[in-house]
Amino acid sequence: MHRKMPSSGIYRLALYSRHLDSLGNREDEYISSQELAEATGNTAAQVRKDLTYYGSIGEPGKGYKIKKLRELLMEAFGKKEVRKLVVIGAGNLGMALIAHSGFRTQQFKIVAAFDRDARKIGKVVENVMIYNIQNLETVVARTGADIALVCVPYYSAQKVIDKLVLAGVKAILNFAPAGRITVPEGIKFQNVDMSIEADRLYYLLKND
Amino acid sequence: MHRKMPSSGIYRLALYSRHLDSLGNREDEYISSQELAEATGNTAAQVRKDLTYYGSIGEPGKGYKIKKLRELLMEAFGKKEVRKLVVIGAGNLGMALIAHSGFRTQQFKIVAAFDRDARKIGKVVENVMIYNIQNLETVVARTGADIALVCVPYYSAQKVIDKLVLAGVKAILNFAPAGRITVPEGIKFQNVDMSIEADRLYYLLKND
Repeated sequence: MHRKMPSSGIYRLALYSRHLDSLGNREDEYISSQELAEATGNTAAQVRKDLTYYGSIGEPGKGYKIKKLRELLMEAFGKKEVRKLVVIGAGNLGMALIAHSGFRTQQFKIVAAFDRDARKIGKVVENVMIYNIQNLETVVARTGADIALVCVPYYSAQKVIDKLVLAGVKAILNFAPAGRITVPEGIKFQNVDMSIEADRLYYLLKND
Repeated sequence: MHRKMPSSGIYRLALYSRHLDSLGNREDEYISSQELAEATGNTAAQVRKDLTYYGSIGEPGKGYKIKKLRELLMEAFGKKEVRKLVVIGAGNLGMALIAHSGFRTQQFKIVAAFDRDARKIGKVVENVMIYNIQNLETVVARTGADIALVCVPYYSAQKVIDKLVLAGVKAILNFAPAGRITVPEGIKFQNVDMSIEADRLYYLLKND
């Protein structure tokens, strides 16, 4: 139905979707590209361009019907189903992600966590059970999780990711700063580097 | 010297900068917009457009001189100086950020961390001292840190951010999922939501 969206465009669509989700009681109203732009740090022209991927859904002089646009984006991001995640590695970062409210408020559900540390295995954190990583394949397969958040040390990342693929995970967010990770064709893979937001702020400090 | 860059453009520039940093032994060569695009998940047209902010620095048929482009971007992101950060809140997320290699490899330096928990105060983690948050203003002022990474619970975020501004911090990355944070004019502020990358992967799962 729509053309292929570049990676940075998907990021912007995610921001639009979240902003629309936050407008609950305005569902029957319209939102202008300018308003969406201001709420998400983009230009109105960029918003209009991004949304042409969904056809001519804007109405001249009115903007976008909030309800309709929100539905389209919920569909695009799988928010109409439960989006199941697993967390691999229950160290500081894994624990922080399990507790992160962003995953709770955005129709995500962390269905299991894994660690190799016997002191952690069997514990329940924020309603999430920590399993022995040796049981990763069976537990992940049973939960039907689509995405794994990988928070293991860099030297374990590739091995864990290989196991996740065997277990049926279709997409992997790698928070472990590993060098080159390889995944089979068809598996979605993304490195997440939390330090890049600090780059962005330094840019603003130096150039504004 | 260059025009105002939109927020998503700064993010792309940060990716280009990091890719160039990784090409150490190719400094005397050229890089094409296509190669930069492939390495960072953008289109060649987008790369060329972003880099026009720096004037006509590409050479027809050759591309960009790696050394020159890298220098320009290092300047833009303040990477020619030590980029000093402080971490507020030494819970799971704060500890994960202190240990995060992305901050160590990108000319960032975390110069201090703060917490209110007496069991943490005085400890040194990855060469970073954890100070009593009551001493935030004096310690931050002494370190000369520009940016603070705020990892406190949401109900403390505004109070901590007010203190940081008084201490002279110019930019704040807020990892605490607080509602509306207000900062004075001139202070750069950015919320970081680690769950948005999961949105992006779900989009790819649903639409590819």
